[in-house]
Amino acid sequence: MIATKRISFQTQGHCDIVDITSQVASKIAESEIKDGIVTLFVTGSTAGITTIENESGLLSDFKKMWDRVIPTDIPYAHDQAWGDGNGYSHVRASILGASLTIPFSNGKLSLGTWQQIVFVDFDNRSRTRQIVVQIMGE
Amino acid sequence: MIATKRISFQTQGHCDIVDITSQVASKIAESEIKDGIVTLFVTGSTAGITTIENESGLLSDFKKMWDRVIPTDIPYAHDQAWGDGNGYSHVRASILGASLTIPFSNGKLSLGTWQQIVFVDFDNRSRTRQIVVQIMGE
Amino acid sequence: MIATKRISFQTQGHCDIVDITSQVASKIAESEIKDGIVTLFVTGSTAGITTIENESGLLSDFKKMWDRVIPTDIPYAHDQAWGDGNGYSHVRASILGASLTIPFSNGKLSLGTWQQIVFVDFDNRSRTRQIVVQIMGE
Repeated sequence: MIATKRISFQTQGHCDIVDITSQVASKIAESEIKDGIVTLFVTGSTAGITTIENESGLLSDFKKMWDRVIPTDIPYAHDQAWGDGNGYSHVRASILGASLTIPFSNGKLSLGTWQQIVFVDFDNRSRTRQIVVQIMGE
Repeated sequence: MIATKRISFQTQGHCDIVDITSQVASKIAESEIKDGIVTLFVTGSTAGITTIENESGLLSDFKKMWDRVIPTDIPYAHDQAWGDGNGYSHVRASILGASLTIPFSNGKLSLGTWQQIVFVDFDNRSRTRQIVVQIMGE
Repeated sequence: MIATKRISFQTQGHCDIVDITSQVASKIAESEIKDGIVTLFVTGSTAGITTIENESGLLSDFKKMWDRVIPTDIPYAHDQAWGDGNGYSHVRASILGASLTIPFSNGKLSLGTWQQIVFVDFDNRSRTRQIVVQIMGE
């Protein structure tokens, strides 16, 4: 059995981190599939997806890491060509990754107690975002 | 067909790298599924999973990269709030990623000759760890 | 239904970025599976896979990021042991990741308009590369 669903939400950009755990769990419940995998996919090239403990100090540490490793204030050839100013957003998104696959059993996601699913918007402006949630199992 | 299994092992923390290739291969053999995908998922927010050539020099290079890119000796807001001292572990885990999906055919994982599956424990202490191994196919 | 296919191509190494989007789409069309997931897996330990906007300025920004974060010109223990000079290639590959899973519906990949699937060859020489393309669905 396969169910393809979507989650849509508003983001602020600038490394906005959105916890989508409960929305993903709801989609699995709706699908009535009990055991399988959920594949989450970010449609777009300036955002990514991962898991993290959703604790405000840690979210700030995660953002600071991006500012150190892939800075906003160095020249990007993408910006010189397109003028969007979001070259760093694309580079960050490509290294974080657009897909995440999580097994579930008896309708319950295999997450740790302190582990949440987060969408990370690296773009430099507010956007409406969409994630594909595909559930496969039995 | 779906089989959900678990692998459990002891780690030392401090970027301990555990080769789990043969355990994953055993779980596929046990499942009697011949063709499909195995989804490996790290339950927890201070460890990750990837593939690497399991060669001691390279494992040391990989650890040094983490010390350069996400250092242990800078301030982390997570540590100031919780006092665990493992803020860097969480940030590393989120960028490496908690899931890995590998196809297999005729019961054989699609790995290269010099490519092993490794669990990387970024935490700052010894722990008992668990990975979910979900096998889907026919 | 499961279809296991392979894509093979020549690369130049040195962070050569190969857009494989149309080849992946062709394999899905050949499979006649309409809804499901495609798992792409890099067989080998010196290359990775991700999505990016295939724009020449951005590809150059992405390459420069690797040169900053995981430099070629620092000592690697792997190189001292094996003399291949590609220690940095392995480290880069392990952090980027060897697998990518993308949902598709009605035969169409869930990619954004400016989002392409790319294979990134981090090795320091030209090679023939192979990706496993496993399609699962109905």
